[in-house]
Amino acid sequence: MSATRLDTDALTTALADLNALGQGGWSLSGGRLCKTFVFPDFVRAFGFMTQVALIAESMNHHPDWSNVYGQVRVALSTHETGGITERDIELARQMERLSGNG
Amino acid sequence: MSATRLDTDALTTALADLNALGQGGWSLSGGRLCKTFVFPDFVRAFGFMTQVALIAESMNHHPDWSNVYGQVRVALSTHETGGITERDIELARQMERLSGNG
Repeated sequence: MSATRLDTDALTTALADLNALGQGGWSLSGGRLCKTFVFPDFVRAFGFMTQVALIAESMNHHPDWSNVYGQVRVALSTHETGGITERDIELARQMERLSGNG
Repeated sequence: MSATRLDTDALTTALADLNALGQGGWSLSGGRLCKTFVFPDFVRAFGFMTQVALIAESMNHHPDWSNVYGQVRVALSTHETGGITERDIELARQMERLSGNG
């Protein structure tokens, strides 16, 4: 999967596609692809994180993320390129899928 | 376990005790009990988080935390009391234990 930094047009398209998959909420912040997932409780939130962790490890591409009870905030970027790449889009797609969308 | 907010003296003692358990690193920041745990990689970091998650859920006391690759930053407080209580100290102790200290 390409680790080339996406240009503005490609990123705009990818963001629209991602937000069309589920309930939206993806945005760009500080050069990273961000979303806050909200679950009913900690068990559901951490269950989601555990599923994502397995996928992230298998992709060798890991999120920056934080969790408070039922909320999981993710911020994706590709450190080597200093920007957002197709690998981030793919990880975001997987997160949508695992959260019940996509 | 008491959910009474610890006073300054009790907190100072608890912090010293915690830092004596392992490699230190606990501090107070923004009224929360904080530490950054550092692991060699994501698998080790997320493994630690998973162990803590099970304990936290059984205590019904959950951390605010973030993870970037091998780093896990935790910030503990007791929302109901707007401060740090014995429950936070106990969760911190468990984290030390699970990270190989204490």
